[in-house]
Amino acid sequence: MTIKEQLQQKIDNKTKPVGSLGRLEKIALQIGEIQNSLTPEISRPVMLVFAADHGLADEGVSPFPKEVTSQMVLNFLNGGAAINVFCRQNNIILKVVDAGVDFDFEENNDLINAKIKRGTNNILQKPAMSSDECKRALAKGKELIEELLEKGSNTIGFGEMGIGNTSSASLLMHKICNIPIDECVGRGTGHNNEGLLKKKKVLQQVSNKFDHKDTPIEILTTFGGLEIAMMTGAMLRAAEKNFVLLIDGFIATSAILVAHALNKDILKNCIFCHQSGEQGHKRMLEYLGVDALLNLEMRLGEGSGAAIALPVVQAAVNFINEMASFESAGVSNKEQ
Amino acid sequence: MTIKEQLQQKIDNKTKPVGSLGRLEKIALQIGEIQNSLTPEISRPVMLVFAADHGLADEGVSPFPKEVTSQMVLNFLNGGAAINVFCRQNNIILKVVDAGVDFDFEENNDLINAKIKRGTNNILQKPAMSSDECKRALAKGKELIEELLEKGSNTIGFGEMGIGNTSSASLLMHKICNIPIDECVGRGTGHNNEGLLKKKKVLQQVSNKFDHKDTPIEILTTFGGLEIAMMTGAMLRAAEKNFVLLIDGFIATSAILVAHALNKDILKNCIFCHQSGEQGHKRMLEYLGVDALLNLEMRLGEGSGAAIALPVVQAAVNFINEMASFESAGVSNKEQ
Repeated sequence: MTIKEQLQQKIDNKTKPVGSLGRLEKIALQIGEIQNSLTPEISRPVMLVFAADHGLADEGVSPFPKEVTSQMVLNFLNGGAAINVFCRQNNIILKVVDAGVDFDFEENNDLINAKIKRGTNNILQKPAMSSDECKRALAKGKELIEELLEKGSNTIGFGEMGIGNTSSASLLMHKICNIPIDECVGRGTGHNNEGLLKKKKVLQQVSNKFDHKDTPIEILTTFGGLEIAMMTGAMLRAAEKNFVLLIDGFIATSAILVAHALNKDILKNCIFCHQSGEQGHKRMLEYLGVDALLNLEMRLGEGSGAAIALPVVQAAVNFINEMASFESAGVSNKEQ
Repeated sequence: MTIKEQLQQKIDNKTKPVGSLGRLEKIALQIGEIQNSLTPEISRPVMLVFAADHGLADEGVSPFPKEVTSQMVLNFLNGGAAINVFCRQNNIILKVVDAGVDFDFEENNDLINAKIKRGTNNILQKPAMSSDECKRALAKGKELIEELLEKGSNTIGFGEMGIGNTSSASLLMHKICNIPIDECVGRGTGHNNEGLLKKKKVLQQVSNKFDHKDTPIEILTTFGGLEIAMMTGAMLRAAEKNFVLLIDGFIATSAILVAHALNKDILKNCIFCHQSGEQGHKRMLEYLGVDALLNLEMRLGEGSGAAIALPVVQAAVNFINEMASFESAGVSNKEQ
């Protein structure tokens, strides 16, 4: 029997009607296959929150000022943000990765200094980064995974912070999925109708400016951001190393779009944790042919959806390891 | 300001875009209102799994034999069932309530002996219980809540076990919601097409036999089950005592249908934790005008959906208590 068949048999022998644990059964099967094990486990889960600034923020594509990126990083380091609360609750180690914030942070145990530069270029004027900068961001992301592997982690949540980054994510979606830009743009952190129209107009201009076919890496280089590029590198390496990848919302999924364009197999390692309230995320998931685990109408980012989903993923691992079988419990599984 | 307004203000001042925590914000508001507190909390959460047998099981309305009820109760007491795994994971105290299982259990700390009788009557022949039996089941349910209140609990999950109990739940739904019986009947623990047709036929016969208007209590008395009646009593008292009620799937919601018919206000205290894969549950929720928190395609019962949802509920309570405000974190919340 293949490992998949053995896992399915183990699941079906548990004291419950066949299939009655629904999505949990699929997750148990998926993690068992990733780990090639009949006793899958979640070890030392880590949340990586990739932060960077966006030159395009100067064009008013977000209702919040650009300074909020660094202010929120400081909030993460002080333990006061939503992602801190959810990681503390669910015993997830939180690390903030400065991929390119326009601010000089003091040293901090919870902050990984991986700054490529102080924010991307304004993509209304020129590509978000140089080819070399994008390569360095991808490589740094891969490096981070090696460190986590050495420390014994096998599960990573991917989150982000960056004022203006729904714009980059929308453009990546537009170019990679070949979906009209209007359908890729949403309210982000909370645009009103006027703000949304302005954002659409700016992104249409950017799209027109770079209106040629490109490789996934060229698309990433052109539209950014630095946090998305570093996340993409980390995701690619994490899948190679048999990690479970907990994918958060719209931005994290835009990184998966790039990673998936480079390696279709990456989806085997991904759990799409939460369907964002951001319009466009549903279409991204459809493009990838996947369903999100939760839909709590959240649209915060930071990895919040992934952190909240971890106990559900843990429940899948726990039931396959801990539940009694019909035989061991002396429960009849024969139909009448 | 009302407590609701104060809670909303507190939520909106947290370091996140307004509304971006979606359903979690609504839950934080709901629990704050239930507890009349700006610092709501989940204290000593308990899962009550109400178990009982059903005379109608003799008619083959379930693919599993009736003995599975007592076998599964023993599995609960031995810690091997899905609900044990999820309660252990999420630090929920699990108590099994024998409301009417056709088996004599030995004494056990985790078992509450509240047996009214050894299973309901076969409702193809006569009402599930006498008026007195139903009253005693309701009263016993209320008593259980008083004990939990004394011990400092403020949150209860409602689960159940009883071979044949989706039949009672379907009939309660049919009579209370005035929905044709065919639309109330589903596959339960896993009927094939033939089994489903047989179940529909039997339940149509039962429905025809008792085809007159009744009070909610008369409907409950007629169609059972003992576990549903006791759960109904417990739910009514729990709401009176300002508990948070974590409602599981199809069976637990059928008890809420009865409780709601007696006290419309009960919904204020209820969190509908998981939309069951059992057809009919979605219609029940629509009838009540509520949305379930999770949809993991589970259809197990036992309280499994409620146990898995607790960390999400806890996250709502934690963010309102622990997150920094814009002011305290020095984060700008001004629009540009």
